[in-house]
Amino acid sequence: MFETKVKELLLKKDLKGLKEVLNLETPVNIAEFIEANSENEKDIIILFRLLHKELAAEVFANLDADEQIKIVGSINDDKLQSLLEELYFDDMIDFLEEMPSNVVKRVLENYKHENRSLINQFLSYEEDSAGSLMTIEYLSLRSNQTVKESLEHIRKYAEELETIDVAYVIDKNKKLEGEITLKKLLASSDDEVIENIMDKNILSVKTSTNQEEAVKLFKKYDLTVLPVIDKENILVGIITIDDMVDVIEEENTEDFQKMAAMAPSKEEYLETSVLHLAKNRLTWLLVLMVSATFTGSIISKYEEIIEQMVVLAAAIPMLMDTGGNAGSQSSTLIIRGMALGEIKMSDYLKVVWKELRVSLIVGLGLGAVNFLRMNYILKQDFKMSMLVSFTLGITVVIAKLVGGLLPIGAKKLKLDPAIMAGPLVTTIVDALALVIYFYLAMFLYSDVLR
Amino acid sequence: MFETKVKELLLKKDLKGLKEVLNLETPVNIAEFIEANSENEKDIIILFRLLHKELAAEVFANLDADEQIKIVGSINDDKLQSLLEELYFDDMIDFLEEMPSNVVKRVLENYKHENRSLINQFLSYEEDSAGSLMTIEYLSLRSNQTVKESLEHIRKYAEELETIDVAYVIDKNKKLEGEITLKKLLASSDDEVIENIMDKNILSVKTSTNQEEAVKLFKKYDLTVLPVIDKENILVGIITIDDMVDVIEEENTEDFQKMAAMAPSKEEYLETSVLHLAKNRLTWLLVLMVSATFTGSIISKYEEIIEQMVVLAAAIPMLMDTGGNAGSQSSTLIIRGMALGEIKMSDYLKVVWKELRVSLIVGLGLGAVNFLRMNYILKQDFKMSMLVSFTLGITVVIAKLVGGLLPIGAKKLKLDPAIMAGPLVTTIVDALALVIYFYLAMFLYSDVLR
Repeated sequence: MFETKVKELLLKKDLKGLKEVLNLETPVNIAEFIEANSENEKDIIILFRLLHKELAAEVFANLDADEQIKIVGSINDDKLQSLLEELYFDDMIDFLEEMPSNVVKRVLENYKHENRSLINQFLSYEEDSAGSLMTIEYLSLRSNQTVKESLEHIRKYAEELETIDVAYVIDKNKKLEGEITLKKLLASSDDEVIENIMDKNILSVKTSTNQEEAVKLFKKYDLTVLPVIDKENILVGIITIDDMVDVIEEENTEDFQKMAAMAPSKEEYLETSVLHLAKNRLTWLLVLMVSATFTGSIISKYEEIIEQMVVLAAAIPMLMDTGGNAGSQSSTLIIRGMALGEIKMSDYLKVVWKELRVSLIVGLGLGAVNFLRMNYILKQDFKMSMLVSFTLGITVVIAKLVGGLLPIGAKKLKLDPAIMAGPLVTTIVDALALVIYFYLAMFLYSDVLR
Repeated sequence: MFETKVKELLLKKDLKGLKEVLNLETPVNIAEFIEANSENEKDIIILFRLLHKELAAEVFANLDADEQIKIVGSINDDKLQSLLEELYFDDMIDFLEEMPSNVVKRVLENYKHENRSLINQFLSYEEDSAGSLMTIEYLSLRSNQTVKESLEHIRKYAEELETIDVAYVIDKNKKLEGEITLKKLLASSDDEVIENIMDKNILSVKTSTNQEEAVKLFKKYDLTVLPVIDKENILVGIITIDDMVDVIEEENTEDFQKMAAMAPSKEEYLETSVLHLAKNRLTWLLVLMVSATFTGSIISKYEEIIEQMVVLAAAIPMLMDTGGNAGSQSSTLIIRGMALGEIKMSDYLKVVWKELRVSLIVGLGLGAVNFLRMNYILKQDFKMSMLVSFTLGITVVIAKLVGGLLPIGAKKLKLDPAIMAGPLVTTIVDALALVIYFYLAMFLYSDVLR
């Protein structure tokens, strides 16, 4: 609807109508339109010029790096300066991080002098650190202000701030002394002094704190904003919940990738190069391939048995697949539980006890079904049906114990539990399953086998 | 620190000191202490009684159902009434949903009469719907109010509301007419009329909307609050970002479970019963086990070939595992990309083209490494090394195409793409890999094999 209208107006070159339609639309939708029509560079630039200052900055912040470069390249220094002034500081840092150096240089030349060193400082924070997520547009008050003075201050500056949910009380050196929610401020009477109503018990993180720690605080305490301080307790910025939501999804994506045996990547699939995708996948595949050859060497070891009873080979895929799946189920639940803080290292006995009971039920169930299938439907003999079904049951029990314990063991060794997911568990369980299988076969068929 | 102090004071029975310490602590930490010491029921009840009204309600909302039942059982009707009055409406609904019917009955008897039917209405919203997530403590204004009047209204009621980020403008029938952020309200001059500054372009959901849709809106538009309306556009509640964060993690957990071939469950691992865990895992294991027997039947079909060349069997585990892993990598990336809205159904050609190129690189790499391993390290003959390496390469290509396309196909058929993850892909790829393997073997060794 919005899209067709804009296209129509662009065709008619009705700039006045276009301006009207655009300035009523949300920045997210305008950015989406620009992304979808990025091949018409001229149209995009016309369109962007029609946006009023604040909207232009918001649309710009929502664009991908490619489009941002096009737009910066199409506007003169004056326009660039006014765009930069309107951008929130964290959005500008995000933008600069993606830009080629010539664009960064031009931006810095056009930026307010006093903030240039601040930009350089922010660009130096490590990826995944609280520092790299924060913004400087926080609401600050002084402890000797009254509620009335504070509210007047807030009304004056509200629109320039990223969030006004919480005001931070700082001294003249910017040391963080307390905080007060806007809700509480509004509910207090005009002549109350901030010092008497502020909360001195403040949750905060350091610039170097890992983003995962910040996420944990947000989730545990239902925060919408969290202050970031330096070593001297000086307030340097705030992190807002919308950035945390992105971090949560990012961390989840990384876990999904690690658990499927890939190197984690923050880039979107369709935007990642083929070489990069291949690189992320190759390492683990190689490791697992080489490990799997050990499983193969077990088969080689029992080659003579297979030669004499080739019917044994037919059950191998089913035993391997089921063992792998049973193990993946357990490791996935434990890895996820640890990521959410629901399962701790000290719970390992509880996990063993639970997995043992679950695996006995599941192993018995699968074994029974398999026995019925082999003995009654496929009419295979009793001994062979028992051999496969019994191996299956034991494999499931082992798979679930291995799958349950490996992630906890990894954490104990300060490794990421997520790498102990399905693929690695499968490789280990496969080998164990085959050893048990052949061992039992030799025992049951000792009369037939040489 | 807090924990040891409270325990010390409880031992000394220093109620005054206890009260002081408790009333300075965050509700989350007090609730955590109660959970961790739930075996001392008496202490918990003493402790809870020392909290001031608002804090008690916040602590209560953070407790598990077991502890909530204990506390409700220990307080008289007067105390219960004042507790209920302080609880946010959504917290009360969450609490009632977990309670046995006798507790629900007692709560309803002690609740303000006018809201009893509202409770029943809220309890009837389907799980996973926007209705089940919302709360009724929203900030509402009238369009003919001035900014000054609005701010006075807000200052009066701020503390009772869940969030004041956005005020909703409603008419006398509670129809939603517009919204205005508190930021904008504060930045406007006192005599401005709401109607002229409110935003009429409102994002909202219906009570029946699925929570995933709500999550998408929050993420796309960086919202902190979203209004919920009924069929007649009447405002019935709001959803706040802290509840969305929980939903995001819940949905991710469900995806992890589905992708590891389990029925999704919202319960924490350590709190799920053994029978329930077993049930969630059995169905898919059975389905996959039966599917894997088809792979086994391929081996049975080529039994004669194995009998003549039993060395062929040794490579089967490696081919199966690598094929499965390669397929899981692709399906995981595509499923995740679709869940985040980064990959659409219409992108299937892009996915095929990308996976084809990636799989050629990966397949070539793995094949080459395997050839070197077999031919130079294990000193196997050239022909056998070529057979296994070539099959490996083709298997990787097929695995990645199957893994990339199945999730998109599932979505096309309106199935959940997450079920097309590793386990199912592995089963399919295993069968294909074996067919190719034996086919190539018959071709290469036609001179040896009968």
